[in-house]
Amino acid sequence: MENFTFYNPTKILFGRNTISQIGNEIKASGVKSVLLLAGGGSIKHNGVYDTIVASLRANGIDFVEHFGVRPNPLVEHSNSGRALMQKHNLDGILAVGGGSVIDEGKSLASCYYLDNIWDAYEKKVVPDKGLPLFVVLTLSGTGTESNMNSVLSNAALQKKMTLYSPLHFPKVSIIDPSIQMSLPWHQTANGGIDAITHCMENYFTGTYQETTIGILESLMRTLIKSLDALQVSPNNYEDRANLAWAAVLALNGVSGAGMNGGDWATHKLQHGISALYPEVAHAPGLSALFPSWLRYNYKLNEPQFARWAKNVWHCDSIEKGIAAMELKFKSWGSPICIRELGCVAKERLGEIVENTLGIAPVIGGLKKLDRADIAKIYEMAW
Amino acid sequence: MENFTFYNPTKILFGRNTISQIGNEIKASGVKSVLLLAGGGSIKHNGVYDTIVASLRANGIDFVEHFGVRPNPLVEHSNSGRALMQKHNLDGILAVGGGSVIDEGKSLASCYYLDNIWDAYEKKVVPDKGLPLFVVLTLSGTGTESNMNSVLSNAALQKKMTLYSPLHFPKVSIIDPSIQMSLPWHQTANGGIDAITHCMENYFTGTYQETTIGILESLMRTLIKSLDALQVSPNNYEDRANLAWAAVLALNGVSGAGMNGGDWATHKLQHGISALYPEVAHAPGLSALFPSWLRYNYKLNEPQFARWAKNVWHCDSIEKGIAAMELKFKSWGSPICIRELGCVAKERLGEIVENTLGIAPVIGGLKKLDRADIAKIYEMAW
Repeated sequence: MENFTFYNPTKILFGRNTISQIGNEIKASGVKSVLLLAGGGSIKHNGVYDTIVASLRANGIDFVEHFGVRPNPLVEHSNSGRALMQKHNLDGILAVGGGSVIDEGKSLASCYYLDNIWDAYEKKVVPDKGLPLFVVLTLSGTGTESNMNSVLSNAALQKKMTLYSPLHFPKVSIIDPSIQMSLPWHQTANGGIDAITHCMENYFTGTYQETTIGILESLMRTLIKSLDALQVSPNNYEDRANLAWAAVLALNGVSGAGMNGGDWATHKLQHGISALYPEVAHAPGLSALFPSWLRYNYKLNEPQFARWAKNVWHCDSIEKGIAAMELKFKSWGSPICIRELGCVAKERLGEIVENTLGIAPVIGGLKKLDRADIAKIYEMAW
Repeated sequence: MENFTFYNPTKILFGRNTISQIGNEIKASGVKSVLLLAGGGSIKHNGVYDTIVASLRANGIDFVEHFGVRPNPLVEHSNSGRALMQKHNLDGILAVGGGSVIDEGKSLASCYYLDNIWDAYEKKVVPDKGLPLFVVLTLSGTGTESNMNSVLSNAALQKKMTLYSPLHFPKVSIIDPSIQMSLPWHQTANGGIDAITHCMENYFTGTYQETTIGILESLMRTLIKSLDALQVSPNNYEDRANLAWAAVLALNGVSGAGMNGGDWATHKLQHGISALYPEVAHAPGLSALFPSWLRYNYKLNEPQFARWAKNVWHCDSIEKGIAAMELKFKSWGSPICIRELGCVAKERLGEIVENTLGIAPVIGGLKKLDRADIAKIYEMAW
């Protein structure tokens, strides 16, 4: 097992009817006013917005709304949020939504005091003080409700970058799985697939970390089982709850303990596509790429890939395991190759390769991928 | 899945050669001086003490030693530690040891400012401010290095009580599994058995919490596998590390998420014995009692008990699963009935029953045990 540090101070309130506690939690933290960050406004139709506003008012918390966070959130929208916070002298952020809203909230939590938010994502500066972030989660999958990662895009530069900062840990995250019952199937599926890929990104870099490997296999089985059940019965609370909690554990540090940082190449390959094609959502991009990453890399640690095929997919060979995963992703309506994403032009793959190389100094943990590796995986995944 | 709150702010440094970071971590927390709490002095023979002292000195941290914490730590020893802290004006606690040393350290962390430490364990007062606790773990099993539980005994009153307080979360816990290679086998076994019982205490109260149940099964399998391996090869780092990390997860909140608080009757039944017989160590007490608790209660949730027998012990019936567990405990040298503890007088079982009833207002989660239930389980376990 590799040495590691485990630290995760986020307080999670999990379960039915927990959202009404948000005002009380913010007040208990000593915060007086928040930027209420949200996406397209669906929270105004499902009762979540009303519950939150009532709770904020009951606890004397002022708030200013900043809606319109889009999938693959933009630093441009974060900048305008910061301007609002400065104008109204707000001392906290309340992100209500899925991964994109929370990630934009994190950019404000960590970078509020910087001259330029994007500088931190370009690693030109390390933020060292911030503002507290509170979260009400409306879509499980990314795990961002309980970790220190934030992914932000820059429309002007056509770039998508990740920033890790301890300032990103939400102070409190509220997860009420019952509000996810009204989600369209493809969003539920995207969340579950995203969480499964988080487990896979960690899984293949370890051999001796039995504790973590066993937990990852269990999480993957639970996520698959829960998604299968929700495809038939989207209103089953237990399956919603199991999916939601497994998605937290898939990326809160537990799933990566001792795994040498994980691989994470596929996530960067996906970022390389969606920076050029913002319409490519996170999970479809991942499900389009992962089968090819697996086929390109399995020879580097065949016993581990075979164990995955057996313990997660109940298959007696690696190729059968990958095929079973593809079949499952397809049954959930998710693409298993880039072509199926429907918007990517094959002649731009070269440009995507260059873009991917610019995302991070190192792409991949199990194997550090070079330009040729990356081009080959995109080609296989086409 | 039952609603729950998950919160665990302890920072864990895990792995080889991590102990030398303790001074740096204490300094970074702003603490200037600590009470160095330890047991019988074994840390002076295995290099741990020297490493810690060098690290404290290098970081300018003053310390005063308070050795002699015993298994089933006593409030009397905690009181004398507090007097030392007051005399030297210390502003933190550094507990170096296993569960007993850490639990006594917690009593100082939470109760330093109270008139009477024992009042908090008797629930007469709720501590609301404390001093920071740092931990260097030398024996894995209890999980107390990363949770808010503390168990303390009172020699004068012959009582053993538990106190939960957020003030008990260590600020930093350092876990270097390699220093556990020199432990005698029975201590390694006791730690592993303790962790297995923590999983079991949570396991049987849930049916729908697939995420947590799957993790608990995985943790139990890992703990059994690691213990079996260490019985043959005590110096295998990977098995030490897997045992150490699984023991953390078995009681840091992850293993109890959504499980309705767990059962914990067997732990209280064990406390009832060891308060009268302090020479009964925690794990042997638990292994002597758990088979009988299982046999007395399995009819309350047969599918869950059958699942445990199958997924943890690979047995096709509950009784076979319990028998497999007994065989395993015996093979590790641990007793499976009270008589085998070797020191308990049968005629005092009635007294033990009364003692147990006084430990907590409720004994048991799956079934709230009354006097007759408790007497019957002790009798079965005799």
